[in-house]
Amino acid sequence: MTGLAAIIGGGVIGGGWAARFLLMGWDVRVVDPDPETARNIAAMLENARLALPGLFDVPMPEEGRLSFHDTVAEAVADAEWIQESLPERLEEKHALFRSIQAYCRPDAIIGSSTSGFTPSALQAGAARPEQIVVTHPFNPVYLLPLVELVASPANPRDVVEHAREVLSGLGMFVLHVRREIDAHIADRLLEAVWREALWLVRDEVATTAEIDDAIRMGFGLRWAQMGLFESCRIAGGEGDMPRFMEKSGSCPERPRTRLTDVPEMTDTLAARISTQSDLQSGTGSVRELERIRDANLVAVMRALKWAGSAAGAHLRDVDRIMRDDAVDITRPIVTGAHAVPLDWTDYNGHMTEPRYGQAFSDATDRFMEIIGCDADYIASGGSFFTAETHIRFLQEAHVGTRLRIETQCLDGAGKKMHLFHMMYAGDDLLATGETLLIHVSLKTRRPAPPEGVLAERLQQIAAAHAKLPVPEGVGRSVGQRR
Amino acid sequence: MTGLAAIIGGGVIGGGWAARFLLMGWDVRVVDPDPETARNIAAMLENARLALPGLFDVPMPEEGRLSFHDTVAEAVADAEWIQESLPERLEEKHALFRSIQAYCRPDAIIGSSTSGFTPSALQAGAARPEQIVVTHPFNPVYLLPLVELVASPANPRDVVEHAREVLSGLGMFVLHVRREIDAHIADRLLEAVWREALWLVRDEVATTAEIDDAIRMGFGLRWAQMGLFESCRIAGGEGDMPRFMEKSGSCPERPRTRLTDVPEMTDTLAARISTQSDLQSGTGSVRELERIRDANLVAVMRALKWAGSAAGAHLRDVDRIMRDDAVDITRPIVTGAHAVPLDWTDYNGHMTEPRYGQAFSDATDRFMEIIGCDADYIASGGSFFTAETHIRFLQEAHVGTRLRIETQCLDGAGKKMHLFHMMYAGDDLLATGETLLIHVSLKTRRPAPPEGVLAERLQQIAAAHAKLPVPEGVGRSVGQRR
Repeated sequence: MTGLAAIIGGGVIGGGWAARFLLMGWDVRVVDPDPETARNIAAMLENARLALPGLFDVPMPEEGRLSFHDTVAEAVADAEWIQESLPERLEEKHALFRSIQAYCRPDAIIGSSTSGFTPSALQAGAARPEQIVVTHPFNPVYLLPLVELVASPANPRDVVEHAREVLSGLGMFVLHVRREIDAHIADRLLEAVWREALWLVRDEVATTAEIDDAIRMGFGLRWAQMGLFESCRIAGGEGDMPRFMEKSGSCPERPRTRLTDVPEMTDTLAARISTQSDLQSGTGSVRELERIRDANLVAVMRALKWAGSAAGAHLRDVDRIMRDDAVDITRPIVTGAHAVPLDWTDYNGHMTEPRYGQAFSDATDRFMEIIGCDADYIASGGSFFTAETHIRFLQEAHVGTRLRIETQCLDGAGKKMHLFHMMYAGDDLLATGETLLIHVSLKTRRPAPPEGVLAERLQQIAAAHAKLPVPEGVGRSVGQRR
Repeated sequence: MTGLAAIIGGGVIGGGWAARFLLMGWDVRVVDPDPETARNIAAMLENARLALPGLFDVPMPEEGRLSFHDTVAEAVADAEWIQESLPERLEEKHALFRSIQAYCRPDAIIGSSTSGFTPSALQAGAARPEQIVVTHPFNPVYLLPLVELVASPANPRDVVEHAREVLSGLGMFVLHVRREIDAHIADRLLEAVWREALWLVRDEVATTAEIDDAIRMGFGLRWAQMGLFESCRIAGGEGDMPRFMEKSGSCPERPRTRLTDVPEMTDTLAARISTQSDLQSGTGSVRELERIRDANLVAVMRALKWAGSAAGAHLRDVDRIMRDDAVDITRPIVTGAHAVPLDWTDYNGHMTEPRYGQAFSDATDRFMEIIGCDADYIASGGSFFTAETHIRFLQEAHVGTRLRIETQCLDGAGKKMHLFHMMYAGDDLLATGETLLIHVSLKTRRPAPPEGVLAERLQQIAAAHAKLPVPEGVGRSVGQRR
């Protein structure tokens, strides 16, 4: 599902929304009086183009059109989705909702990026409160899956469901917050840590860099994949949650935090934090830090995708929804189509050698799926093992390059499956991968011919592909003269 | 540096210490009256063997010897390191320190895993306070790099330095906490989040599963790599930290947390948390959850290692310290030696096809480094590009299999570098990788012969290797009969 989105407020959050909508195929209209808006959004969009497409192992929709507008009226006129990302001042948000609702479609969703206000507070005094919901995202909006969706009793169920569908269609993980509360869920946790961290800096117990290390070398690694409670459950050992609660769950009586009090943000404290942060991170611009962060996030999320956990499980779900299973066996079969992810590249943004092999191996997996060698078949006791592969590296690929792998079956008789993969970017042939697989019985772990539907399907494709010309490069050995 | 460690208390934390010491080559003596200790530690050690070695891309030391002892006297007698991991009751810890100090070497380090007490509190009444420090690790101790090292004025500088060296030698990231404070740094932050999360569950705003999702789909992914302050700095956009502080840094006046108060841990609240946690995570045993967690952690940390950020930068440092740079060119050169990491395997623990290619590609990189094609040389304008590769898959490798790659140089004349990699586990040949690289000028991106020391070094190795027999399998094409 794509359409037209109006983005009101084009800062870090609004710009992140614009990038996500655009890359997921929506047309986007932006309104922000700040003259820097177009430049800011162009910079974010550039980062987003390098990062977001690489999260998916399926083709992305064509990028939508971006335009800038002077008035809210012009931007929201036909929009299906309107996203408000103004500073956290309730009166300004109310005034904006009045002018949006004077011009927008009554069936449009108006999502607010507010991190603090409840939907009821936002809806107060609105002409049509039912179309306003909280859709609170997390920076970088174009990469992090989480969005908190909060409704009030004024929102009909179909509005909430429609909002959920649109956000899911953007590849987001929708956390439906069932009760209205200031700061929703995630920002309450963040606020708690922020306050404790302020005390540590104020009391000169730790610097900002030491606090960040305390997080990212320790529990931050747990939280990226399991969160708080599941980590605690494991800490209880074999006694599960009751054992943990008994050991550590109740708050000890001695004060282990200063959270009964809130530190005053004096000029001294603010200056100390800025100085320490400069020492810690000041060698690069924020744009450079953003690129480092994005590369890390893509690598971490793809690692979790391998594992099928947390954000990685979510990304697998998104792939399942986005992928196209149509197969045409009268020509080389498309066995892969996706952008080169950041973590497939070196520091120059070039795809590294082993990732060519990975792309071809993934293509082999897809081909096996197409002939029916899926999890069920493997569970029944047969599979193909790779005996050997040969790869020619013909041209470089870069981060974001949209790869397409086409596979020609050269032989499917007996125990053999001989495949020739061709990796393209548009019409350019970047690499070829020739591979020979042998069907084995998983009981004996020895070669054995495949049976039934799988053998038939493989021979059908091999017969169809026998009519195609033999591709250049088949049968080469390493170093052979052309 | 290895030696003998005594582990007093063999639960989740003590057992984790035992596993880390053992896998890093130390002999370990464990004391714990609990009859389940040996079984618990065996289970943790099994998990640790699958996970820890795969973090490093260098050979691990030989695993140390594990023994169980009935008395503290017997365990600590010759130990260089004594680690206390008892429950958080100060009197018990004091009593233990008395019996340890009656038998241990005066130059041994006594590290306490306490998450709450300061070193001064622990040292009170001790015979030799100077040898007691806080060394607070994070679960799983055998995987997470962070350890908080806290000393008191009673600890001489050389004790603190010695403790830091031992912990670093275990592959840990040592955060030296410069001021004594209850709960040190990380657990204060954890405690703050824990309290806020308890309120959310108590007030029925969110379930444990929703809170975990709010973390792991959002800011948890940021924290695994940048922590709190660096993430905030980026949220300030191009204005860096002052801009963030101005926008969001000071605590708002309206209460966004309930942290001015602490929830009472009633039976109702404890039962609710346990029930919700069962719903969320109760389908698997804690042992199964641990294996999922470990696979996720290895994948995430290796992703960060690719990026060279946070825990990944730390792991690169550990590799640098552990690796052996000796090269013998009269035989095939050892270009790789490490264990198969969890994220190189499928759900059955078998190494996946593209990872064979990655191991060979890493071996090629190492060979290039040996002949002097390093970052400086590449910066000077020349490099080798891979033209083609051929891999034969002969035997399966599994998670934890200790791989050794040996590389024979078949040709190093002119622009060509023709290598033949052999992957072994012990004496078993698992796979071979033949690869042809062409030297290019990075200015023209066209073939050009290498010059100077690099060309000499390559020809020297090629000449030495010309005296070796040509390995079986050289020059094969895919599907060629033997």
